[in-house]
Amino acid sequence: MKSFINKTDQIVNEAIDGLLTNPLLAKLDRFPEVRVVVRKDRDPSKVAIISGGGSGHEPAHAGFVGAGMLTAAVCGDIFASPSVDAVLSAILATTGPAGCLLIIKNYTGDRLNFGLAAEQARTLGLQVRTVTVDDDIALGTAVKRRGLAGTLFVHKIAGQLAEAGYALDDIATIAQQVIDQTISIGLSLTECQHLGHPPTTRLKEDQVELGLGIHGEPGIEVIPYAAADQLMDIAVNKLAAYLPDTNGRYAMIFNNMGSVSPIEMSLLVNSFRKTALAAKVDYIVGPAALMSSINMSGFSISLLLLTPAIEQALLAPAAPAAWQLHPFKAPATVASPELPSTLLHAPSANSRTAALIATTAGLLVEIEAAINSLDAKVGDGDAGSTFALAGKRLLAVQDQLPLNETGDLLLTIGRILAREAGGSSGVLLSILFTAAGNAYTQQPDLGAALLAGLQKVKDYGGAKKGNRTMIDALEPAFEALASGATLSVAAQAARAGADSTKDIVQTTSGRSSYLSEEVLRNIPDPGAEVIARVFEKIATL
Amino acid sequence: MKSFINKTDQIVNEAIDGLLTNPLLAKLDRFPEVRVVVRKDRDPSKVAIISGGGSGHEPAHAGFVGAGMLTAAVCGDIFASPSVDAVLSAILATTGPAGCLLIIKNYTGDRLNFGLAAEQARTLGLQVRTVTVDDDIALGTAVKRRGLAGTLFVHKIAGQLAEAGYALDDIATIAQQVIDQTISIGLSLTECQHLGHPPTTRLKEDQVELGLGIHGEPGIEVIPYAAADQLMDIAVNKLAAYLPDTNGRYAMIFNNMGSVSPIEMSLLVNSFRKTALAAKVDYIVGPAALMSSINMSGFSISLLLLTPAIEQALLAPAAPAAWQLHPFKAPATVASPELPSTLLHAPSANSRTAALIATTAGLLVEIEAAINSLDAKVGDGDAGSTFALAGKRLLAVQDQLPLNETGDLLLTIGRILAREAGGSSGVLLSILFTAAGNAYTQQPDLGAALLAGLQKVKDYGGAKKGNRTMIDALEPAFEALASGATLSVAAQAARAGADSTKDIVQTTSGRSSYLSEEVLRNIPDPGAEVIARVFEKIATL
Repeated sequence: MKSFINKTDQIVNEAIDGLLTNPLLAKLDRFPEVRVVVRKDRDPSKVAIISGGGSGHEPAHAGFVGAGMLTAAVCGDIFASPSVDAVLSAILATTGPAGCLLIIKNYTGDRLNFGLAAEQARTLGLQVRTVTVDDDIALGTAVKRRGLAGTLFVHKIAGQLAEAGYALDDIATIAQQVIDQTISIGLSLTECQHLGHPPTTRLKEDQVELGLGIHGEPGIEVIPYAAADQLMDIAVNKLAAYLPDTNGRYAMIFNNMGSVSPIEMSLLVNSFRKTALAAKVDYIVGPAALMSSINMSGFSISLLLLTPAIEQALLAPAAPAAWQLHPFKAPATVASPELPSTLLHAPSANSRTAALIATTAGLLVEIEAAINSLDAKVGDGDAGSTFALAGKRLLAVQDQLPLNETGDLLLTIGRILAREAGGSSGVLLSILFTAAGNAYTQQPDLGAALLAGLQKVKDYGGAKKGNRTMIDALEPAFEALASGATLSVAAQAARAGADSTKDIVQTTSGRSSYLSEEVLRNIPDPGAEVIARVFEKIATL
Repeated sequence: MKSFINKTDQIVNEAIDGLLTNPLLAKLDRFPEVRVVVRKDRDPSKVAIISGGGSGHEPAHAGFVGAGMLTAAVCGDIFASPSVDAVLSAILATTGPAGCLLIIKNYTGDRLNFGLAAEQARTLGLQVRTVTVDDDIALGTAVKRRGLAGTLFVHKIAGQLAEAGYALDDIATIAQQVIDQTISIGLSLTECQHLGHPPTTRLKEDQVELGLGIHGEPGIEVIPYAAADQLMDIAVNKLAAYLPDTNGRYAMIFNNMGSVSPIEMSLLVNSFRKTALAAKVDYIVGPAALMSSINMSGFSISLLLLTPAIEQALLAPAAPAAWQLHPFKAPATVASPELPSTLLHAPSANSRTAALIATTAGLLVEIEAAINSLDAKVGDGDAGSTFALAGKRLLAVQDQLPLNETGDLLLTIGRILAREAGGSSGVLLSILFTAAGNAYTQQPDLGAALLAGLQKVKDYGGAKKGNRTMIDALEPAFEALASGATLSVAAQAARAGADSTKDIVQTTSGRSSYLSEEVLRNIPDPGAEVIARVFEKIATL
């Protein structure tokens, strides 16, 4: 499995240095012997909030260092607890008379190493309190509860209370309350893959794991793969059985375990929204990778029972970009605007215009097969049908058109083409007529209006004369009309332009740019050919 | 390939509804026929900023709707442009007399559909300007430049100018300047995988793609897989060749294409930091998924040449959580604190204590093989060596110990064990002595201090009496000492405790919890056995 790494033993160090491009952060200069990330702007008169643990959980923990969250994070190797010396260094570097709180995830290594560092710091006269987070409810609430992403609630609330100047004992008491009121469950499609190692394959294609940890350990249950809504129901039912208060209001951490795509994470939030539990949730943090397991394709949900004090601390702003909270509500709608109807203007009579339209539309229907056949040689064979569809639609509404109001007529044809004609050529012709109509409404000069419309076709379509498109016939014809020439002269110009496309065998724009010289030689562009035939036909009227 | 979806044709709708749990956003009520996400708090007197395109690029575009960025986003199907009606609906829903700016990515479908919607909106009398983003430099700056993540710079700066009340023409002018000054390049280890479809395998395990788009199209070059630093150099060299000003200062978007793990993204930022280009970059947006390609395992880098006006608009806060910018600097260090030395206190003499320590340490060395042999039956066979190592270290420093100061001695032994003994049992014994030393310093009562230390061992270690650990021997012995009993009585209690572990065959904590009844029966816990032997030995002094 490919990954973006240099040497496997440098992954953690290099990732920390990448994070440290944020100038609010710094590392202790014994890095990487000890890997401690600290706030540059820490206030030594306030309680220091310190957490950490194994790496591989980014952005946790170093990504949550900053005003309103952690004062320091201590980073171990991938999934390995940091050393006692590293933890002690973090304490000594950040702790003043107000003391420090160590937030420990409930794993033996972390408990022992943070615990011993705490004892050593106390020997040095520092006030140290520790709390141990055990939010996992995969095995119930009685035994072996691991620390999962719910830990971030403790970081946030303890961090905010420290920022607000609370005393250590008060912070520790509330942190413990947050721990007691937080539950988490994870579900994953795949186990995590160690970077730079061969992929592992514990799970089959039709299996997923429920109740997993963040260190690649097997989940508590292997369950069948199912639709997102069903998997979410299973996870949510597990959580719902351990709610600290079934009538309470909750904040939620919606955690990407590492490599779930953003669109899937949003979809999962929607799956959650459809569960009964969603009605109890007032806030969501994420969806985002918050406490990942390298690249695991899974999610975890953590719920914190809110109290007024906890809610206030939770909502205060925090510096770390990785912490993003917003209220959690049902999707809202606003009224859609009414779109203009296709036939917006009153019909009016003009016999010559009526004849022009009827003749053109009739021709488009008549030549459908011939143009399709031509298009089959240089395209997907449906150009004739696209134009014929437009022709049929124009014939169907010819009595309802504002035939005597040129600007309105151009705009109406533009609308008909937008709604009824398919493909890029339908949209391009619609742009032509709509923009020509807009121009004519400003300045009633048909030739100039058509050229203005053509310019928009070039602007939005990206092709110009010589690219083997309709433009090769349209541009000379419109220029002739704009200069006051007759329809007959315009038709000759259109024909010459269409015929010139037979020799255009290389182009960098338009659909012909994907075709070879041999395919294109001596075949006119079907769109240009249609335009020439239309002009030739109406010139006979 | 497993993914979190329900039905493939509902992925986009469901992901949008997940996003809309953010109450700052709403959708037009013709959803999902048209998929338009709007700011609820939009100010109709200001220019509306509208973007969008195919889905599959989350959080773009709907994730950037909010104060200071987009007024509305129009979402097509996966990698497909939204309909003209959808774009027109977005315009009509948000555009007042100040007009609107459409920010279009340079793909034919988007240009045509947004372009036609713009023309139709103009027909209705609205002021509409369009800009087309073409930041990709994979093929140079001359031809076929696609719109990539650099588009987000245009969203941010146009959005901020609109928020600040600028006029449409001025916003369009600066937006075009941003486009002219933005370049992007992508590099990926894998192509994106369509959700719910069989995986595709265009790239081999030793290949990566440079110059890729965001719709699964092949990259411009297939290059060999290499270390992250080398891949970054290749991408950066490509970018450096097209810098709009080689002496300029730049802002950077560091984009995760969908499924790169967070630790790899931080590592890639560090790879970038090592390139010459890094010295020209003042700000970084990300690293984060900003304009993804579903789940592509790749990154893109976008650079924007800064001017004072652009920089000011870029730095203003914006509501969308997905937009995260910070200054980009070299990692900073702060001085590490000095850790207390192992032997902190002046040596002092006490012949009885000296004898206790020498005897204990000597015993630990002497019984190494016996205890290892016992441990091999119920553990990994190194318990004897762990204790022997501690014994050897104590023998080596016995002349430097504060033998006549009990508190200092306990703390010193704690430090020696922390630095010199290995494994969990080393840390646990260190916690015992350190915490006992701290307690003794507060209140010079050895029995109480040892029990206080033992309590910390239980707290941090998570085991208690009856779990087949050292505690089964330590606790009765310490309780005996605390109640004033002789060493001989304490030794009997320790022995009874150690022997009791032979019958403990089921436990939920400690290392024995992983072993079966048959393995454990009649074998004492090696740690408890060591403790009993130590007490028995020193009781003879």
